[in-house]
Amino acid sequence: MTTVDTVLAHAAARREDSRARWFELLRIPSVSAQPQHAQDCRRAAEWVCAELRGIGFTANVRETKGHPVVVAHHPGPTGGGRHLLFYGHYDVQPPEPIELWTSPPFEPALTDGPNGPRVVARGAVDDKGQTMTWLEALRFWHDVAGGPPCRVTVLVEGEEEIGSRNLAEFLEANAEELRADVAIISDTNMWDPATPAISTRVRGLLYTQVDIRAANKDLHSGLFGGSALNPINLLTRILGDLKDEAGEILIPGFYDEVPELSPAQRAQWDALNFDEKAFLGGVGLSVPAGELVRGPLERLWARPTADVNGIWGGYMGEGSKTVIPAEAHAKVSFRLVPGQSPAKVLAGFRDFIVARLPEDAQVSIQVFSMSEGIEVPADSPHVAAARGALAAVFGRPAVLMGCGGSLPVVSQIKEILDLDCLLVGFGLEDDQVHSPNEKFDLACFERGIDSHVRLLAALAEG
Amino acid sequence: MTTVDTVLAHAAARREDSRARWFELLRIPSVSAQPQHAQDCRRAAEWVCAELRGIGFTANVRETKGHPVVVAHHPGPTGGGRHLLFYGHYDVQPPEPIELWTSPPFEPALTDGPNGPRVVARGAVDDKGQTMTWLEALRFWHDVAGGPPCRVTVLVEGEEEIGSRNLAEFLEANAEELRADVAIISDTNMWDPATPAISTRVRGLLYTQVDIRAANKDLHSGLFGGSALNPINLLTRILGDLKDEAGEILIPGFYDEVPELSPAQRAQWDALNFDEKAFLGGVGLSVPAGELVRGPLERLWARPTADVNGIWGGYMGEGSKTVIPAEAHAKVSFRLVPGQSPAKVLAGFRDFIVARLPEDAQVSIQVFSMSEGIEVPADSPHVAAARGALAAVFGRPAVLMGCGGSLPVVSQIKEILDLDCLLVGFGLEDDQVHSPNEKFDLACFERGIDSHVRLLAALAEG
Repeated sequence: MTTVDTVLAHAAARREDSRARWFELLRIPSVSAQPQHAQDCRRAAEWVCAELRGIGFTANVRETKGHPVVVAHHPGPTGGGRHLLFYGHYDVQPPEPIELWTSPPFEPALTDGPNGPRVVARGAVDDKGQTMTWLEALRFWHDVAGGPPCRVTVLVEGEEEIGSRNLAEFLEANAEELRADVAIISDTNMWDPATPAISTRVRGLLYTQVDIRAANKDLHSGLFGGSALNPINLLTRILGDLKDEAGEILIPGFYDEVPELSPAQRAQWDALNFDEKAFLGGVGLSVPAGELVRGPLERLWARPTADVNGIWGGYMGEGSKTVIPAEAHAKVSFRLVPGQSPAKVLAGFRDFIVARLPEDAQVSIQVFSMSEGIEVPADSPHVAAARGALAAVFGRPAVLMGCGGSLPVVSQIKEILDLDCLLVGFGLEDDQVHSPNEKFDLACFERGIDSHVRLLAALAEG
Repeated sequence: MTTVDTVLAHAAARREDSRARWFELLRIPSVSAQPQHAQDCRRAAEWVCAELRGIGFTANVRETKGHPVVVAHHPGPTGGGRHLLFYGHYDVQPPEPIELWTSPPFEPALTDGPNGPRVVARGAVDDKGQTMTWLEALRFWHDVAGGPPCRVTVLVEGEEEIGSRNLAEFLEANAEELRADVAIISDTNMWDPATPAISTRVRGLLYTQVDIRAANKDLHSGLFGGSALNPINLLTRILGDLKDEAGEILIPGFYDEVPELSPAQRAQWDALNFDEKAFLGGVGLSVPAGELVRGPLERLWARPTADVNGIWGGYMGEGSKTVIPAEAHAKVSFRLVPGQSPAKVLAGFRDFIVARLPEDAQVSIQVFSMSEGIEVPADSPHVAAARGALAAVFGRPAVLMGCGGSLPVVSQIKEILDLDCLLVGFGLEDDQVHSPNEKFDLACFERGIDSHVRLLAALAEG
């Protein structure tokens, strides 16, 4: 029996212990967005720190301007080859609306689902469950072999759900300490319940708020209608112009830096036979929106978007109020692809708005998020090691996929630490991430642990 | 000294008593929209009823499905000529936002303003203050002459601010009892603080709520962006199409029934030398919106509008949330001119929306208000009588103006009781109607009383 087999057998014999530790972490309501949970965020950091100390790491809770960061180190065996940086986050999204949960969000509930047992809780998968997959793998390596098979640094932050706003500063201040050969992140999905995946593309994100002001107070639409500028009408005119009927974004120059997909990439994705009809059918839709001339996975993974995520202004109550409001507001975000500069897109969006502003309207644009799209070389030895580990656990090859969402930390790690990220995640599309009744399938959790046990061995060797 | 001079002298000697009675009514928080004020609405009705009984009317508080209506009758002198119907409303708008008031909304405060003393309170002008102008005139006629100089019926409702939703039914059920020769309403404005006005045109109103639904739940814009329909983007596209850059409304057929202004009317309004720059300047605007090819008063009084009065959907909180929401909503209203059918405009708006709906979007349209524009013959004997009365009080001729707002009761009275309305109001543009710090200038209130004293005499004679 090889060491890795012994570690896997040990992990298999300890499933209930792994679950109990995961549940402990899920019970801490570490909601980073809500000030009343600041102490809970710290408790979660301390819990992670104690776990790492318990398995031989030198670990500390480190302060930032916001919620603390946990940093831990293990030297691995003397002379061990690769140096791995594991990244995760202990903070979670707010659980609201609470009334839509079938069980309390911070009391993990083991229930049955189509793929067997699942755990329902806020953070079940994002990212407490996924973080626990590699923490448990490190634990079982410690139990069997006294420590991981190579040098490991751990970074677990507490502000991912609020834009990792203090992480860049922390990375810059501690770049020397956090240097490694590759970063490993489990915060993405598998292809399907039976098929593992490595994400080699992540879209970037520009998230803005547009505030338009006109009159200096709310006006009566009878007295002023026909004379006064209505900022909601104006806002709808501007945002209504963002895309044409075929889904193309009409900001001048928006596509200038968007690369065409390589024929090889396109062929690989075509071979996945993605069933967009089923994907949309699951949420009550039947026909794709977005750029109609593009393929479904291309639209989701390799094309930029322009979505209005929120809009408000004027009277929003029951019945009627005949007001011409003074202000109108919208949250507008763009998913970006590798090659697009968020700053250039922002400038283009600003120009697009300003070109449509009449004399009496003022606009201000706030930026809440700005991250580049990332593409990881699919032919690196790290990806090769991960493919081997995943194939061994799942009994079938991993899919190399894109990720339509954004992981700003990936571009921060690339930019500040000059590290590529290996994105190996075990989530599923139906995990209700950020929604009520977030869940993580138990099988995904346990295969995630086994995958990281094997991945550690593969990367240590390779 | 004629009787009317004696009544005027009596009124002039009783200014403080008039004010005290007005303040009593203002202290009753009769907010029709708020269920917790239902008893206050009834108290206001009872207060008005008691006032009318005190000056010789047969008066009763009458039930409706909502807040009660006060109906009162006075036979006038035996064999008296005209029969007048006075209409007013005792309900007021909600005072919110309370924090913007400089004094408690239901504690009338006498303060100084550019035109002398003014009274600040919710309902100061709309419509308690205006209703009191004719109630006080009737009182002084009673004090001096034992009653009004002609037959008078009074109708004071309590649901005007919530769309007079039970009034039509009440008018229909009591049409015989409420029959008269002309209806008199004080719920409109003067031309300026020194110049009285009679409103001969009132715009109609179609007020709708548009609800658009797409997916069966909120989606993550990273996972679904580029594939899933975004109902906010769609709503902005639809509403952004409503008007072109020159302010013309683009619903097919929208202008089919909009009559051109007669040259005489246009000439009369041109002669008013309306200063739109000052009008807009007062609210922080500098250039007119609306149909640029039309004159300013024409746009305000004789042209229809399309305003989005409210819009909401998706994430409206602090910071960012990358959601593609399931729903988006807007309040959309149209001011209509005499000749336009609200039902036809509604049908056109519905078609306009449906033509822009992709397969996966559902729309529902709620209608909260539907009233026709009204034009009152400017050459009627009633208008002539009012011009004479106003000129005598103000020392200058009354302006015949339009009203950009909507008084659904005017079309109900026309349709159900077959009565023209004489709209003689004493409000000013800066009265903050429906806003915090609503006020009524004391001079307007007192000249309103005197005008109604004279108007009663003039209409009784004519």
